[in-house]
Amino acid sequence: MAEQGLFKIKDDWNLEIPVIDENQIVNYGSNLLCGNGYLGYRGTLEEWGKEQYKACIVTDTYDMADGKWRELSNAPDGLYARVTIDGKNLAHDPGSLDLKTKLNFNYKYGIFERSTLSNRKENSYKIYSQRFASYDNLHLIANQYILSGVKDSDVVKIKIGIEGDVWDLNGTHLKNFSSDYDSEKNILYIKAETVEEEIELVTALSFKIDSKIKNIAVDEKEKALFLIIEVDNTDKKEIKLQRNLIIYSSNDTKNPLKKALEDAENSLEFTYDELLEKHKDKWDQKWEIADIEIKGNLMDQLALRFNLYHNIIATPTHSEYLPIGARGLSCQAYQGAAFWDQEIFNLPMFMYTDLDSAKNILKYRYHTLDGARKKAKDLGYDGAFYAWISGKSGKELCPSFFFKDVISGRKIRNHFNDWQIHVSPDISYSIWKYYLATDDINFISKYGAEILFEIARFIHSRVHFNQYKGQYEVIRLLGPDEYHENVDNNAFTNYQCRFALKIALYFYFKLKNESTGQLEKIVDKIDLNESEITAWQEIKEKIYLPKPDPENKLIEQFDGYFDLEDTTAEVLRSRLIDKSEYWGWPNGVAVFTQVIKQADVIQLFTLHDIFSEDVITANYDYYEKRTQHGSSLSPSQYAVVAARLGRSKEAYRYFTKSAYIDLKSSNKAVSGGTFIGGVHTAAAGGVWQVLINGFAGMILNKDGLLFKPNLPEEWDHIKWKLIYKKAKLKFKLTRDEFLISSDKANKRDIEFKVFNKKYIIEPGEKLKISL
Amino acid sequence: MAEQGLFKIKDDWNLEIPVIDENQIVNYGSNLLCGNGYLGYRGTLEEWGKEQYKACIVTDTYDMADGKWRELSNAPDGLYARVTIDGKNLAHDPGSLDLKTKLNFNYKYGIFERSTLSNRKENSYKIYSQRFASYDNLHLIANQYILSGVKDSDVVKIKIGIEGDVWDLNGTHLKNFSSDYDSEKNILYIKAETVEEEIELVTALSFKIDSKIKNIAVDEKEKALFLIIEVDNTDKKEIKLQRNLIIYSSNDTKNPLKKALEDAENSLEFTYDELLEKHKDKWDQKWEIADIEIKGNLMDQLALRFNLYHNIIATPTHSEYLPIGARGLSCQAYQGAAFWDQEIFNLPMFMYTDLDSAKNILKYRYHTLDGARKKAKDLGYDGAFYAWISGKSGKELCPSFFFKDVISGRKIRNHFNDWQIHVSPDISYSIWKYYLATDDINFISKYGAEILFEIARFIHSRVHFNQYKGQYEVIRLLGPDEYHENVDNNAFTNYQCRFALKIALYFYFKLKNESTGQLEKIVDKIDLNESEITAWQEIKEKIYLPKPDPENKLIEQFDGYFDLEDTTAEVLRSRLIDKSEYWGWPNGVAVFTQVIKQADVIQLFTLHDIFSEDVITANYDYYEKRTQHGSSLSPSQYAVVAARLGRSKEAYRYFTKSAYIDLKSSNKAVSGGTFIGGVHTAAAGGVWQVLINGFAGMILNKDGLLFKPNLPEEWDHIKWKLIYKKAKLKFKLTRDEFLISSDKANKRDIEFKVFNKKYIIEPGEKLKISL
Repeated sequence: MAEQGLFKIKDDWNLEIPVIDENQIVNYGSNLLCGNGYLGYRGTLEEWGKEQYKACIVTDTYDMADGKWRELSNAPDGLYARVTIDGKNLAHDPGSLDLKTKLNFNYKYGIFERSTLSNRKENSYKIYSQRFASYDNLHLIANQYILSGVKDSDVVKIKIGIEGDVWDLNGTHLKNFSSDYDSEKNILYIKAETVEEEIELVTALSFKIDSKIKNIAVDEKEKALFLIIEVDNTDKKEIKLQRNLIIYSSNDTKNPLKKALEDAENSLEFTYDELLEKHKDKWDQKWEIADIEIKGNLMDQLALRFNLYHNIIATPTHSEYLPIGARGLSCQAYQGAAFWDQEIFNLPMFMYTDLDSAKNILKYRYHTLDGARKKAKDLGYDGAFYAWISGKSGKELCPSFFFKDVISGRKIRNHFNDWQIHVSPDISYSIWKYYLATDDINFISKYGAEILFEIARFIHSRVHFNQYKGQYEVIRLLGPDEYHENVDNNAFTNYQCRFALKIALYFYFKLKNESTGQLEKIVDKIDLNESEITAWQEIKEKIYLPKPDPENKLIEQFDGYFDLEDTTAEVLRSRLIDKSEYWGWPNGVAVFTQVIKQADVIQLFTLHDIFSEDVITANYDYYEKRTQHGSSLSPSQYAVVAARLGRSKEAYRYFTKSAYIDLKSSNKAVSGGTFIGGVHTAAAGGVWQVLINGFAGMILNKDGLLFKPNLPEEWDHIKWKLIYKKAKLKFKLTRDEFLISSDKANKRDIEFKVFNKKYIIEPGEKLKISL
Repeated sequence: MAEQGLFKIKDDWNLEIPVIDENQIVNYGSNLLCGNGYLGYRGTLEEWGKEQYKACIVTDTYDMADGKWRELSNAPDGLYARVTIDGKNLAHDPGSLDLKTKLNFNYKYGIFERSTLSNRKENSYKIYSQRFASYDNLHLIANQYILSGVKDSDVVKIKIGIEGDVWDLNGTHLKNFSSDYDSEKNILYIKAETVEEEIELVTALSFKIDSKIKNIAVDEKEKALFLIIEVDNTDKKEIKLQRNLIIYSSNDTKNPLKKALEDAENSLEFTYDELLEKHKDKWDQKWEIADIEIKGNLMDQLALRFNLYHNIIATPTHSEYLPIGARGLSCQAYQGAAFWDQEIFNLPMFMYTDLDSAKNILKYRYHTLDGARKKAKDLGYDGAFYAWISGKSGKELCPSFFFKDVISGRKIRNHFNDWQIHVSPDISYSIWKYYLATDDINFISKYGAEILFEIARFIHSRVHFNQYKGQYEVIRLLGPDEYHENVDNNAFTNYQCRFALKIALYFYFKLKNESTGQLEKIVDKIDLNESEITAWQEIKEKIYLPKPDPENKLIEQFDGYFDLEDTTAEVLRSRLIDKSEYWGWPNGVAVFTQVIKQADVIQLFTLHDIFSEDVITANYDYYEKRTQHGSSLSPSQYAVVAARLGRSKEAYRYFTKSAYIDLKSSNKAVSGGTFIGGVHTAAAGGVWQVLINGFAGMILNKDGLLFKPNLPEEWDHIKWKLIYKKAKLKFKLTRDEFLISSDKANKRDIEFKVFNKKYIIEPGEKLKISL
């Protein structure tokens, strides 16, 4: 989808691929993903296989097959289909010239459609297929497959079934296959186990055909089970196949086979359209709050919804035990595991549009506390040091040797797993924001406080006091900018650590004052000592915070950053020996320069509204020139800060950089031996922030809710909704006006500020504020 | 000198090279160096030039010619000589087959001799030449050059003069040449200036010939001045040339040319033999105390004296302002600058054999305090952080980018200059040892205390308090083992830091109690605050010292060392992609393994007598297997520890490894683009330690002097002398007895222990202790 010409905006929800470009197959797979937070089915054709990166990624199936990478498993593919007519293939295989296939994806309901027309002179067969991953039953993918243009004389055979030989990134995960076909019920299945964890994974398939069946031949292989169905198509120009693909693992239920067969059978009781309706209902409920309307640029509207859709389907909202993968469920890359992206990029949208999901996302960190405790202990610290790459258990999944020096071929010891500590205080930060947005003190006392205390404890064990300077320091860090490892007092990390201590202390004393006994429970459980509280207070007071220089207003990214060579990413590019070289640690081209991978000091500004405008301006101007945006996390943060500074042109430019990162991706599937496909879910979450925190200029802090709206020139208006302290609010931002209405059903007045003016809105009230 | 067969032990002071091996020219130059601490004249033939690494390195001529490396300059060569007979060359040029040259070097007096015999059938000319760098006048190198076998009919021309186009390692240092020849006085000179510092450097040459001179032709070039002397050799079979080469720089005297011409003229008033006698007197005085006699192995005896000789001539004993170069004055490599080698390796011998020189060596660190203060400040610390590579000013000469990644060609940021902090406490340690050996409180109050306080201050500013563990830590270090940079709590460094604080506090309170007003002066001068003293005490108490494990007795070299891959240097060698790869930081083969470059924990044992024998044994056994001895500093320390453990076979093996490191070197001159020749002066100093601290088992600490003698099987006895607390003591160690006598002139009784028994020896007394 590299070229804009390759996809077409059909309308504000639908994207069309008029002609399949075979170089873009890997991007179709991710961008046109059907998903529901439980599974992700890649946007591929029924007749394709693992060579086309076809996969159905399933949550909670972490397994290690290569001795190094623990990743999610792909389920056997139950949507395989291939038609022959008179023995001749009617499949859009790569390289085929006599068929033309068009794709459509509906981002409102996650519906993938394909239409294939034969170009052959003698006939005009058509395959039309539609599928969705149900939000009504997360284990179901429903498919309607229609073959039309059939002549009476045609011998039509449709091969369907389940293929267990699936695409895997790092080693083959499935073993011990068994299968069966119930010809009465028209249900077949494959059961397999993952190689390491021996998780049972079942794919069942039930189907209906609205034609008479002449014959069904069973083709059974070690890892596959196919049916070759010969249809009696006399007097039928159109053959309709309804299929229900069901997936369960033994982590979902004790007897996944039983459940899968039940679901397969039950789903046959509904028509495809009925199943679709139930699914749509769920999405309609989601969009009721989550949708954002942009008027004035249809492509931007679609791109925005693309990102909202992907942030939603990436998130296992059904569970409080599962992380949001950095590539969601679009592929196995990044191990289906959470990074700091989860809280800082994915979570904010849920915090204001889907509270239950937001709570689940945070509870996940509660349930993985033991993993974080173990990591801290293993590294000689205490408390909770969250994994850089966090799967289900929260144990560190990030290997010590990660990148390769492509010149020498030698492995590089990257310190993501031990030096990039900001992940822990980032979680504290998000708990605080969640609390501000929801007033959910129950969550804090039951889950949040324990996390906060353990993170404070970790920080306590991690910082060092510089007796000579009378300050606590945080030494040997990797900040958000990953090109500079082994740095001291990374501004972002130090500010976040201080904030985490502050929040831990805030709730410690709040719970203490409220005397509900809840504090005592936690203190008891985690053996928290009074002297630790004193220590947190002291560290909070004395931790070194790199301050803006009084003259030039710059905040130094870390100790000594300004002494590094001052150059640009372009110059560094010219110094590369090998194009695929890693730019960072330990000896990459960026290491001894001021060129940074991504927002770092700037990232601080998006989180903390404590810096004056001249400081933000000075730092934006300084760091922007030196940022390579080598991470997909970066552009959205620059967009937010630019928008808040009123630089709407720049903000818009960074918005597009973030919003189209996958849609316009021209990435090859594999680079330097590593699969790099997949949806950038953090960028998806970041796009929401650009709209709400950037263009709407929403800031939430202890003083309340504040808006500094700033509509980009390219658009006529933006409309959105938020839930804030349980109240539903509706917003519209036009060139001249900012409209806010409070839902009638709301139970409280809501206070907020727009720029410097205070407003209070009552339930049912509408405010119109001139800009 | 790779093969033992290539050199011959003539007697216990003389080494002979029977036939010149052209592959060893670089090693002859260093090993057969004439030197006197002021200059070093490489062991080369008169007719050779810079291609044969001929050079005369002069102290205190630091100059940077290539924009990167500041190094000592080489003076114009005044000992050039080339004979023609009937127009035919009589020179031992490389590749010449009709001449045979034998070399001899006398290590007692530093006399270089060459004898060249022509192999031509028709004649039997001989060149015999002898030279020494005078200890009577440090600016003088005297040479006697004799041509014999001359026939009446021969037309003999001798070309002598001064060549200013000299060998330089890093850029050409000399410019603005001027020269003159005074034909009446037979004195010629070349004056030049160094390119950066514009130091005037003068080489003058005066000469006498004991034959009539037919004619002298002057051959003047831009950078050279030669005389072609035609000799009237009627009735003379032998022509004797006496030459006095004089070198002065403008750092020695205001008008170096005047001084050089004066000295050149004055020296002509003496015969060569008279000059030699005066020189010998000085050496005799030195050897009176410094010599160590080994009976039982002539080669070991010679090798030992080779090392004593080189440690002496490397040391600018004439000055308190100059460092001991890591390669002495044998070449420009290592910048003629001091490393920690100076105190820990070179100094001990002087401390017990030449007190004035020992004091000068330490005073050098006093005079370079400002450089150390600047370095500390530049890096954000306080006090005195001594340069890793220290020239005259004490400013850091070690560049940040030093090694090259030979695979990518990219420079490596080595952290010798900022992370290898132990150099500072190593100096404190040596001041303490000097004090123990001399009782020289005057030195402490005038020089030592200020150094000690500033080092304590540096440590104070460098350590961090881990509030959680209640301990001070030293973070981000490079210990003696240079393969592991960026480590925390390197045992050696932490112990040394604590020791440095202890010593600083000891003298602070000693000077305070003695109330001489001296403390107040220093406190005033360096603005020392009472709160700093309190801080030093607290850090001393609470600094983390890696302790021996209660079970296996091992001391961890640094935090996490034992978690590294446990392998051997041999395995690592097999992993090299390029033989010349650097093994260390940041991504060399040793970095993530337990293979270490050199003694580190073991180095701790040689300095501090505070560990039990089982701890030393366990650690010796553990670390010895993992030590590559990639540094010349390593073997001597293993030898000392092995000897103290009574493992005399191993000790002897490590003694030979250290003692023959240069004598048996088969190194090529240049490796990886870097000249690696030159005498390993630290190894030379280390050999003295092996004898005295190892085989004699001498340990000096606060409790006094202790001997644990242990004679290697290979030897019959060792005899040596020491000065201890101004008393001259004589020792002899045989298989069965340890004999000690105290000089009659001594003014005090000396207490000491041998093993666990205490002895007191009176002036004039002799003790015989059975072993």
